[in-house]
Amino acid sequence: MPGDAPAGPAAPLPPGSTVGILGGGQLGRMLAIAAARLGLHAHIFDPDPAAPAAEVAQSHTPASWTDHGALLDFAAAVDVATYEFENVPLETASTVAGAVTLHPRVRALEVAQDRAQEKRFLQEIGLAVAPWAEVDGPEEISTAAEATGLPAILKTRRLGYDGKGQVRLADGFDAAAAWETVGGAPSVLEGFVPFTAELSVIVARGAHGRVEAYDPGRNEHEGGILRRTTVPSGLPGRLVQDAVLAAGRIASALDYVGVMGVEFFAAPSGLIVNEIAPRVHNTGHWTIEACATDQFAQHIRAIAGWPLGAATRHADAVMDNLIGEDAADWARLAGRSGSALHLYGKAAIRPGRKMGHVTTLSALS
Amino acid sequence: MPGDAPAGPAAPLPPGSTVGILGGGQLGRMLAIAAARLGLHAHIFDPDPAAPAAEVAQSHTPASWTDHGALLDFAAAVDVATYEFENVPLETASTVAGAVTLHPRVRALEVAQDRAQEKRFLQEIGLAVAPWAEVDGPEEISTAAEATGLPAILKTRRLGYDGKGQVRLADGFDAAAAWETVGGAPSVLEGFVPFTAELSVIVARGAHGRVEAYDPGRNEHEGGILRRTTVPSGLPGRLVQDAVLAAGRIASALDYVGVMGVEFFAAPSGLIVNEIAPRVHNTGHWTIEACATDQFAQHIRAIAGWPLGAATRHADAVMDNLIGEDAADWARLAGRSGSALHLYGKAAIRPGRKMGHVTTLSALS
Repeated sequence: MPGDAPAGPAAPLPPGSTVGILGGGQLGRMLAIAAARLGLHAHIFDPDPAAPAAEVAQSHTPASWTDHGALLDFAAAVDVATYEFENVPLETASTVAGAVTLHPRVRALEVAQDRAQEKRFLQEIGLAVAPWAEVDGPEEISTAAEATGLPAILKTRRLGYDGKGQVRLADGFDAAAAWETVGGAPSVLEGFVPFTAELSVIVARGAHGRVEAYDPGRNEHEGGILRRTTVPSGLPGRLVQDAVLAAGRIASALDYVGVMGVEFFAAPSGLIVNEIAPRVHNTGHWTIEACATDQFAQHIRAIAGWPLGAATRHADAVMDNLIGEDAADWARLAGRSGSALHLYGKAAIRPGRKMGHVTTLSALS
Repeated sequence: MPGDAPAGPAAPLPPGSTVGILGGGQLGRMLAIAAARLGLHAHIFDPDPAAPAAEVAQSHTPASWTDHGALLDFAAAVDVATYEFENVPLETASTVAGAVTLHPRVRALEVAQDRAQEKRFLQEIGLAVAPWAEVDGPEEISTAAEATGLPAILKTRRLGYDGKGQVRLADGFDAAAAWETVGGAPSVLEGFVPFTAELSVIVARGAHGRVEAYDPGRNEHEGGILRRTTVPSGLPGRLVQDAVLAAGRIASALDYVGVMGVEFFAAPSGLIVNEIAPRVHNTGHWTIEACATDQFAQHIRAIAGWPLGAATRHADAVMDNLIGEDAADWARLAGRSGSALHLYGKAAIRPGRKMGHVTTLSALS
């Protein structure tokens, strides 16, 4: 009798089905291409009429994130939905999830959108994070600083991205000014951990609970923006293995379906989780050339209920982001004959804007 | 003064330019994706409103091949044009080429569309072809058969594709019936050559004359349809090298710009050219996973006046076509976790129809 037993794992969506994607930036664009390659259609929901993903998707709904009717129409038009950025408004995600399967689940967004929830969740499952404390008013900053040490960074709990809405506090800081910088929003104070390297794991979890992780990459950031990912990372094997296990633990604890990026610091004391991104991830772009199933195909496979592909790597890779004016150099970059150049189809170059990336492969070491 | 000197090589088309593609099948689809990845837009011209390429292209003109006005509008909307199948009507190609740069040139289509012209051209540049003779009426078949030996195959000079419009003649053949099978069209009679293997070269020639060839693959056909390509071919190094040199000679002799597939037979006497396809080629699909610049990106680079990428291979590969009902087995194929599955988004499975392919990589041997 329908409804008597809990629903078993859904059958895989057949070719010709439609994947809905909330967000039409470069990640949505690469997801739409991956869907097409698997014989699935892509439908982009993004307010921007010039969203980079739209031109490679079968459909595009250029409506507002708060347009309830448009969201329900979108949900009705697709067979499964996903998102390409972690700041999808929770109400938007919930509206869609109420009408069609949404993967990753809303729970992953909730955790990733709130730094305090995220850190608490990570600690609850036994993973280390940098010293931190909640800050709900300027008068709490001093006590928080005792817990974290100084210098430390005050960040809003929500909507932090690529270094915006943050302030660094050192000895003799001005609590009132700091509080103003974060807009008086509920915040966290994060202490610094001395680290020797940043690494990330791109992990996938399928609808039936199977986990596949790509080889961790070593990341270099500049001004809060990723510049380069190198695989293999050159870090000790045990650290790399710990990172993979931690990423798998996070995905399983969230009953996650899809691809997730987990960023770590390699500290003298061991691994520190920096951040969870419940989506395909910039530090996984090298998988396009270096793996038979790249992170985008893997995400589509997972959310469509297909078996995951192997995350095996058949080459070493270095991925360099093209930020802002870097992309003006496209003609020279196109001439680096052993490299794969990717440009995201963004008309205007702006400082800090991710315009493309270049992946250079070498023989498996 | 403009017009005084011959035009030098065109400057590379900047990102944001539009590539027009005549034909919207799976090859057009993979070309459109390659264009998008390089930051270029794709505009498909194909009468079929459900052309597989349309959903991953920015624009689609679903007009007839003989719609002169639509072709001129298409040409005006794009910065360079190309085609994904060698049976583009010559008048269609010429109309487009009169209004915008078309690569490969119309000359390549002319040669490839006429078996007699093709064989004559190949012989003129010193390459071997199977014994053949022109046949312009039933009364010429016997004389032709003396030149080719029997058995032999009578084929129309034009519009032959995947084994259609052909008849095999053996001792005691009925000339009138044979002539009827080819529809009384100008034909050629082709003799058989004993061969030990079929191989093909995917060769690219850039706008400035540089040539890059991918490692030749060994092909297996069934009923005139490609089933499998294996790279490396396992054939003697000298034969492989000869094939690459022959493909380069063909491309240069045609002043070719773009990617071309050249099929060979490996015969005891050496290499025999079987066929030229002036387009990206089914036997080059393995390059998607095994090369930093695949044949589709390479073709787009060539026609857009960009430098060619390296045709270097970083893995061994086997590519299996999914023909007709093969695609009904998608769920099992999706579970071959080390393989890359490609489905072309065709709604209806039909016998002999190319529905997708699967590429399996292994470590470079």
